[in-house]
Amino acid sequence: MTTQAAVYRGNKTFTVEHVTTPPPAKGEVQIDVAYCGICGTDLHIYLGHMDGRVGLERTIGHEMSGVIAAVGGGVTGLKPGQHIVVRPLDHCGDCPACRAGHEHICHKLKFIGIDSTGAFQQKWNVPAHTIHVLPDDLDLSHAALIEPLAVACHDVSRGKVQTGEDILVIGGGPIGMLVAMVARDAGANVTISEINENRLKYARGIGFNVMNPKELDVAKAIHDATGGKGADVVFEVSGTQPGVDLMTAAAATRGRIVMVAIHASKPTIDMFQFFWRELDLIGARVYRPEDYDAAMALLAKGVVDCDSFITDIQGLDDIQAAFETLTQNPNAMKSMIRMSEDVK
Amino acid sequence: MTTQAAVYRGNKTFTVEHVTTPPPAKGEVQIDVAYCGICGTDLHIYLGHMDGRVGLERTIGHEMSGVIAAVGGGVTGLKPGQHIVVRPLDHCGDCPACRAGHEHICHKLKFIGIDSTGAFQQKWNVPAHTIHVLPDDLDLSHAALIEPLAVACHDVSRGKVQTGEDILVIGGGPIGMLVAMVARDAGANVTISEINENRLKYARGIGFNVMNPKELDVAKAIHDATGGKGADVVFEVSGTQPGVDLMTAAAATRGRIVMVAIHASKPTIDMFQFFWRELDLIGARVYRPEDYDAAMALLAKGVVDCDSFITDIQGLDDIQAAFETLTQNPNAMKSMIRMSEDVK
Ligand SMILES: [Zn+2]
Ligand SMILES: [Zn+2]
Ligand SMILES: [Zn+2]
Ligand SMILES: [Zn+2]
Repeated sequence: MTTQAAVYRGNKTFTVEHVTTPPPAKGEVQIDVAYCGICGTDLHIYLGHMDGRVGLERTIGHEMSGVIAAVGGGVTGLKPGQHIVVRPLDHCGDCPACRAGHEHICHKLKFIGIDSTGAFQQKWNVPAHTIHVLPDDLDLSHAALIEPLAVACHDVSRGKVQTGEDILVIGGGPIGMLVAMVARDAGANVTISEINENRLKYARGIGFNVMNPKELDVAKAIHDATGGKGADVVFEVSGTQPGVDLMTAAAATRGRIVMVAIHASKPTIDMFQFFWRELDLIGARVYRPEDYDAAMALLAKGVVDCDSFITDIQGLDDIQAAFETLTQNPNAMKSMIRMSEDVK
Repeated sequence: MTTQAAVYRGNKTFTVEHVTTPPPAKGEVQIDVAYCGICGTDLHIYLGHMDGRVGLERTIGHEMSGVIAAVGGGVTGLKPGQHIVVRPLDHCGDCPACRAGHEHICHKLKFIGIDSTGAFQQKWNVPAHTIHVLPDDLDLSHAALIEPLAVACHDVSRGKVQTGEDILVIGGGPIGMLVAMVARDAGANVTISEINENRLKYARGIGFNVMNPKELDVAKAIHDATGGKGADVVFEVSGTQPGVDLMTAAAATRGRIVMVAIHASKPTIDMFQFFWRELDLIGARVYRPEDYDAAMALLAKGVVDCDSFITDIQGLDDIQAAFETLTQNPNAMKSMIRMSEDVK
């Protein structure tokens, strides 16, 4: 029996093909994928920025939810029918980072769905250690938000956000917005800096303070609003030079700045401020198992308004159109693909 | 009775003048200054880089030791004859940093000896809260190293250096060398990167691993020497673009980078590495009271080979020549001024 899979073929093109997925090997689990969200990284792949890493015959996708279809040999504690999400990281177990307990940033980390086959397909085999079992009553489309929400949980955890702290999130895209939600749930006073009016409107609509750096001096506004203190924690999610300029300007003395964004080119940084005000810049990448647990709990608690956050859901046959639409829609929060008509 | 004071008059000029120091005011202590080292900041002042901040009639100097001559009203626990050093920081007590317990980086911090009268003079009045009492048997010329050693203690404390960790110090000037000594005393394996051959020779002579980035790829050498791990803690003390390039390249995954140097211009930073390997950049400025206590203990323990570290000691009358010589001698570690012939 064949099932359907989207295959990235280069040049902004996905083909939906019939494939034969082998039974799960020893230590693997086979999943009937339910939903898979489109990540910013998936867009980069679609736009051809990562052909060297991904190749031209890969099924990508990692922001997924699904149901266990079968388990391979030696897999314990998992069984068909369980609702699950996959933490798409495969580590080597033997490098200095793994040996120090930092498996999520293993020197040889394979990101499943980028460096190996991903979830934009109906049947997917993954290592059993990547599975997190969901409560049965969690909507599977909502559950497909767990991966990006786990990123946000990791970011907030790295920033050691405390109740009552003043937080600035620079960049109100999907990850920035989720960071803001997680920080707010931790009891922080959150402001989002963003230049896109529709994103600002969305953020305002769900109750955040918002500031548009095209309209005001955000650093000054933050210092004014905090009695001259500044932001206790700044999340730099914009990946821009104005973003890194703002991060040092807005931070409090001894403030923590969490570097969430991927800066492909090297920005200039006001390093003097790090010295002068003893700032702390903390890198944050992907997530640890406990961040998945936290994300599941926060989702169940209703921290994310999934109905407004999920911009649209399209069928696997329409994946090409979904990517085309998303590249032209900077307002979208999360677009998702539903893998089969069977999925409720 | 008048005493002598060196006064910075601008244009690379000190004059040694007769001054009348008033008795210590309420809450003040009057000190017979014994020795005062020449700091990098003092050199900047001498070279005219800080005239706007310092003015053209200031007695500077802060790396001092001395003996209490008199105490003002309301001062308890201190008495004439005690050997002391001054922690030259005066904070406001009321800004967000002070209220958060970070008095040493007060928003309105006055650095005594830069923003107010300093120690290149025979009699000096300072607030009593700045005094640390020395053991009587500590050589007062050695004690004048406590201020820069406290900087190093603060840097190593901010970097949370642990026994057995691999440390890279970028820049082997006086502060870099003291950081290396403190980190070594904490049980770390220390390598110093430096381009000046005489400094390299000095560092090698006191037992450090040294690397010259003009001769080898220091980042590669550090990774090779640590089984691919990299440096657990990097101290950036060079204040240069190659220094900040090396700091991200040499650090281990989850490595801590302590920003000790003053970067007057904004360097470009490999921000991607902060994300990818979850690096942590930690600013460190001056010291807290406990860093002074630590420095006193380390000095007493012999962690600094004071006889080789103190390059030369000259009389107050020769302060102009001492500064002139020092600007032309990149090999010097610490030049000191002895305030009076009476000082043993
Ligand atoms: Zn993603
Ligand atoms: Zn590994
Ligand atoms: Zn100094
Ligand atoms: Zn203050």
